Amino acid sequence: MMSERALDAYHDAARHCIGNPSAAHALGRQAATMLQDMREKTASLLDIDVKSVVYTSGGTEANSIAILSQLWRRSPKRVIFSSLEHAAVSQHKRLLETMGFEVVVAPSINGYLDVDKFRSLLSDDVQLVCVMLANNVVGTVQDIPALVSCVREHEKLSGRRIHFHCDAVQMIGKKDLKLSTLDIDSAAMSAHKFQGPRGVGLLYAPSGSLESLSKGGGQEHGLRGGTENIAGIVAMNTALEDIRENIHQDAQHVLHLRKLLEDQLYATRGIMPVSPRVDDGKDILNSVMAISIPAFPSEVTTRILSDNKLYVSSGSACSNNAKRQHNRQLVDFGYPAHMANHLIRISFGPSTTEEECDRLISCLRHIASGNITNVMR
Amino acid sequence: MMSERALDAYHDAARHCIGNPSAAHALGRQAATMLQDMREKTASLLDIDVKSVVYTSGGTEANSIAILSQLWRRSPKRVIFSSLEHAAVSQHKRLLETMGFEVVVAPSINGYLDVDKFRSLLSDDVQLVCVMLANNVVGTVQDIPALVSCVREHEKLSGRRIHFHCDAVQMIGKKDLKLSTLDIDSAAMSAHKFQGPRGVGLLYAPSGSLESLSKGGGQEHGLRGGTENIAGIVAMNTALEDIRENIHQDAQHVLHLRKLLEDQLYATRGIMPVSPRVDDGKDILNSVMAISIPAFPSEVTTRILSDNKLYVSSGSACSNNAKRQHNRQLVDFGYPAHMANHLIRISFGPSTTEEECDRLISCLRHIASGNITNVMR
Repeated sequence: MMSERALDAYHDAARHCIGNPSAAHALGRQAATMLQDMREKTASLLDIDVKSVVYTSGGTEANSIAILSQLWRRSPKRVIFSSLEHAAVSQHKRLLETMGFEVVVAPSINGYLDVDKFRSLLSDDVQLVCVMLANNVVGTVQDIPALVSCVREHEKLSGRRIHFHCDAVQMIGKKDLKLSTLDIDSAAMSAHKFQGPRGVGLLYAPSGSLESLSKGGGQEHGLRGGTENIAGIVAMNTALEDIRENIHQDAQHVLHLRKLLEDQLYATRGIMPVSPRVDDGKDILNSVMAISIPAFPSEVTTRILSDNKLYVSSGSACSNNAKRQHNRQLVDFGYPAHMANHLIRISFGPSTTEEECDRLISCLRHIASGNITNVMR
Repeated sequence: MMSERALDAYHDAARHCIGNPSAAHALGRQAATMLQDMREKTASLLDIDVKSVVYTSGGTEANSIAILSQLWRRSPKRVIFSSLEHAAVSQHKRLLETMGFEVVVAPSINGYLDVDKFRSLLSDDVQLVCVMLANNVVGTVQDIPALVSCVREHEKLSGRRIHFHCDAVQMIGKKDLKLSTLDIDSAAMSAHKFQGPRGVGLLYAPSGSLESLSKGGGQEHGLRGGTENIAGIVAMNTALEDIRENIHQDAQHVLHLRKLLEDQLYATRGIMPVSPRVDDGKDILNSVMAISIPAFPSEVTTRILSDNKLYVSSGSACSNNAKRQHNRQLVDFGYPAHMANHLIRISFGPSTTEEECDRLISCLRHIASGNITNVMR
């Protein structure tokens, strides 16, 4: 949900910054100045170079620009996608294959990319690697520095550059992440994932090696055409500012809720942990926790919870549009098949209360025990 | 500029419709219902089939989805672009050529596509035709029914389907246009051109023959991935509603201003008409009028006017980003070269006042006479 401050910022900018930044007259120049100020602010908030900021219409578009950039290549070669990717990345497989690329999916074990297997896939003809920073369903965070290091070592041997792209949509605002230290070539972000507006996102493109298929009027260094959505960009910056300001206290609150949920749910008979525990020593997003409840299919559990005003999902929301069984995801992530049809994803944040978690725990215990008369509405 | 009513609608929807339409829980279902209601409203306002409504992030993206859809073809063939196209369409030429397509530009005479020449370009291997409905710089409106008819006749002879795409970005809200009567396969629209929000647009896709390169989570019938920007869509519909409600009185007002400008400017020594006159019997957008003032280069004239708080442009705003001389546009449109470097585009609308037009006329007369001491600030 968009924060009140972000919404106010949108309102204010939409009323007062009405020029088109590409127009040569005074209103246009005012808009161009505003856009540049915003770009510097985004860069400063994310601690990245101002030239690497490319505003897009969202995370999906940012991922697409990075991936489709490959289509300019005269000789299509190998592309590696991790098995953890969101549809915004993975659905490009069929197109790339149609265009003559070989798309290899790097396997995972319990939500983490198998690094040895990944390294073995780095043949000399690899052009692009896509690895999701934090998974949206199970909350596992990949060891990007280790994976980038594999790639850069291979580059030294082969003498060929490999583009490393990260889908960072789930990550921003949830971990104090320094993108600029990762040595990646591009990353995708989405404003509505951190209480900014929908329809606004960011492509982090530090290496300057991308070329968009759709340049329109040449906006955003030619990487994303179309009149710039300044009000949306202003609102995104406001949301980003708030997130950064509160990141430590928000993290404490989310950690507290995570531990509460883990303590109460992982000890319950009939509930199987899917996501790692906070104390397992693995890198995770504390705000995303997946469990499996064999007593009922995911759809039944989510429906009962929804009737109790508790909103969880049975996987990625976006995958509900796909025709295929969306719980297939969990198998792709390297989990055993028996967990897949009973997956529940609990996602929470700074505005989630302890009382809501208590109600969720109580409901889930009833469901897990198979006794749902008390929670049916 | 976004209307107050559109802005209020955005605000209200962003606060009250917070679910992701793809989520299965109650908030998600509420959002999905809202989105469907909005789609039916858009369809009704534009008098098109609800299944043909594809929400996008703007006109540029809508054009790109339609054009890039061609890349799925196994055997690239001929594509025809009119010489009047905006960069949002024309910039795809290089990509299509890289991908093995032959891109032919159909020439124009004084802002109108040469229909005989166009017909002669319809070889049996044409796959896509793009013709802009109303030109953004000179305001000429193409005879789409005649052009579509050429294409459909050719289809009967060749037995092969040709996709006819229209960039309708300039047209919506300015003419009472019935898209559904045009027998085209797709059209692009942009909300901010009719006082809706930036970052929202529409792809009209009645024939179901498009396939996007970027499907994301499968939203918008798989044609435009990404979490739907419901607040933006609600605001676009509000703007569309206002436009439709006032279309006849707005048209009267704009026609009055157009005649005033024509009467005063076209009779002035030193000002050369570029756009046709209202009484010439040609189809034009009354709200866009281009002239040429040989006394000074466009940049000087626009700067002087801007200093007098009169905001006109020297061509398409978007083309200012391009490295090439943007006034080259006019030559592409089929006008004599000597007009090109002195082009001034005057664009006005329902909120423009007669007083503003009078001030503009007075300033332009000074400039045209070469005596600019009175208007320099």
